[in-house]
Amino acid sequence: MASSSEGTGIDETSVSGIDGASGTLTYRGYRIEEVVRRLPYESVVGLLLTGEVPGAPAEAETRHELATRRRVPPTTERLLRALPPSTPVVDGMRTLLGAMPDLGGPDPPSRAQFLDLIARAPVVVARLHRRARRRPAVPPAADLGFAASYLAMLQGDVPTLERARALERYLVLLADHGISASTFALRVVLSTRSDLASAVAAALGALKGPLHGGAPSEVLDLLDEVGSPDRADAGVRSVLERGDRLFGFGHPVYRVEDPRATLLRGFAREVAAPDRFELAERVEVAALRALRERRPGRPLHTNVDYYGAVLLEAVGIPRELFTPTFAVARMPGWAAHAREVVELRRLVRPPERYVGPAPRPLPPGPERTA
Amino acid sequence: MASSSEGTGIDETSVSGIDGASGTLTYRGYRIEEVVRRLPYESVVGLLLTGEVPGAPAEAETRHELATRRRVPPTTERLLRALPPSTPVVDGMRTLLGAMPDLGGPDPPSRAQFLDLIARAPVVVARLHRRARRRPAVPPAADLGFAASYLAMLQGDVPTLERARALERYLVLLADHGISASTFALRVVLSTRSDLASAVAAALGALKGPLHGGAPSEVLDLLDEVGSPDRADAGVRSVLERGDRLFGFGHPVYRVEDPRATLLRGFAREVAAPDRFELAERVEVAALRALRERRPGRPLHTNVDYYGAVLLEAVGIPRELFTPTFAVARMPGWAAHAREVVELRRLVRPPERYVGPAPRPLPPGPERTA
Repeated sequence: MASSSEGTGIDETSVSGIDGASGTLTYRGYRIEEVVRRLPYESVVGLLLTGEVPGAPAEAETRHELATRRRVPPTTERLLRALPPSTPVVDGMRTLLGAMPDLGGPDPPSRAQFLDLIARAPVVVARLHRRARRRPAVPPAADLGFAASYLAMLQGDVPTLERARALERYLVLLADHGISASTFALRVVLSTRSDLASAVAAALGALKGPLHGGAPSEVLDLLDEVGSPDRADAGVRSVLERGDRLFGFGHPVYRVEDPRATLLRGFAREVAAPDRFELAERVEVAALRALRERRPGRPLHTNVDYYGAVLLEAVGIPRELFTPTFAVARMPGWAAHAREVVELRRLVRPPERYVGPAPRPLPPGPERTA
Repeated sequence: MASSSEGTGIDETSVSGIDGASGTLTYRGYRIEEVVRRLPYESVVGLLLTGEVPGAPAEAETRHELATRRRVPPTTERLLRALPPSTPVVDGMRTLLGAMPDLGGPDPPSRAQFLDLIARAPVVVARLHRRARRRPAVPPAADLGFAASYLAMLQGDVPTLERARALERYLVLLADHGISASTFALRVVLSTRSDLASAVAAALGALKGPLHGGAPSEVLDLLDEVGSPDRADAGVRSVLERGDRLFGFGHPVYRVEDPRATLLRGFAREVAAPDRFELAERVEVAALRALRERRPGRPLHTNVDYYGAVLLEAVGIPRELFTPTFAVARMPGWAAHAREVVELRRLVRPPERYVGPAPRPLPPGPERTA
């Protein structure tokens, strides 16, 4: 039987570029090292969506637009109350963002819908989190920047400048990364001319998978298990000897260290408690050595999850919110990919190959007649 | 900048095979013509899930299992009440099926979860539909077959044998079709080791897109506009002359008539009102002639939507439920693909190509320091 096939087999993007050999990541052509040093999160939103670096007036406008959109529609409030408080936050995000009526609709997604999505995601996370802990919701503060406002809604008070800045850098570094599995799910859904709510729900469903964004807090479990810097080598060995994976190492694309990992190491150093950071560094060294010894031909590197986890812990994000916070960070990237795929105007599909049995008769049996 | 790429670029399946050149569709190697004549829907569920044609005991067991699973969990009841009654049914399906706690979970999806998904989908559609029309829910009847039970829950009384059989044939014919966009979205999500609920939510988000399953009732709009058989040529011409598409014709894979279209024409003839069927036939002939005249080099054929719409109308399914009924039909296919992709144990991703600007410096501006 001939194979059936449609789609080009290659999906194209101009939102972010990854060069795995040299360890380069660019947003719209701008290297991530320069972007994170120079642009606030709100400007990164504008850059990803439009391809242009916003000037001061555009940056102020995006900041204002995002700040005033920090609220959820009444439907969301009702659904939130109907969800079991034990709902995992990333599942609650999928249900609530997916069911926002004003993120649906028959027309291609608009800039207003993209900004609503980006501004509401942290509100939804904070509401779900505080509900699960049976604490009252913290109303969003329009006078705070994106990252500070997220922390304030989670924690109930205005964070230090240092913590807000550290979280902002994390959000900038995680805002896009080529056509990852979640972004690809979003692109497939939108390529049928479905709507933004459906596409983001699909992306969240992929992001939560442990092979994608679903397991970043396991890095902290590793640090906890090792316990103290002098136990680094022994702790790492015992994890490997019982056949477990070392979380936070290795990447399917980068052949050198992920540039985000390099940057996050520095940012985590600035904000983490010194003994926690020392433990992380010692475990990292021990892990890289052990992995090199076990697979000399295929060196693994520290990935974005490793110091990402150390940084998120240091700014006070609880572990069960690591994946949801990754999702919050990625919303501008998803919005940019949504805009891009709608402009492509063709179904995103890989070639497929049928590998089952050749046509054959059914086993003998009765006919069914009406 | 080098392109980044992962994934094989080809996705493989053994669930159903399509040969577009000869117009062949097989489920697990069995031609659809034979499957629809010989197997009840419940056996098709078993065939797709396992690859084996169920014998009489297995068929009876699947029938019993599906019949006893026609209920939704309490969480779903609460969410249903929180959804606006105006929610489009396919969106409601995505929200409610996606949030079913027992379809989630960290383990690979089980046979029990697949059967729950398949059995609950029609319950969810019927509940959403009757709620939108402010009519009381009809409790599921365990003594009816799958198709008859679906019609009874929608319409409030037991359907005729003829209608139930016609709908059953539609459900069988739509139960799988290679790696369509919705099935692909499901496979991408599950390949991250996410859960069945997330994957089905993604698939529903793709299915509703007008380029995929979102527009089948437009066929009836065409018939209504033409109005009577003697106006077929004039009506078709006027649609084309104002630049509109003729829904129900053309397919990206089949170069001859889709075998499902051939079968559905015969089944629709048995169940539709004779004058409605005559109108459909005359409009079909006029449309095929007009399309051939306009594009002699690329003949279009009647597709599955055309007589699918005539059949669904004839069995009393309202137009706004055509896409949800397609989704109900496709659940066993999605379940089979879910099982297949979990067994693959690798990320499903196409190669990607970065097509944006080469690395460049940011425009001059201030550094941000904490």
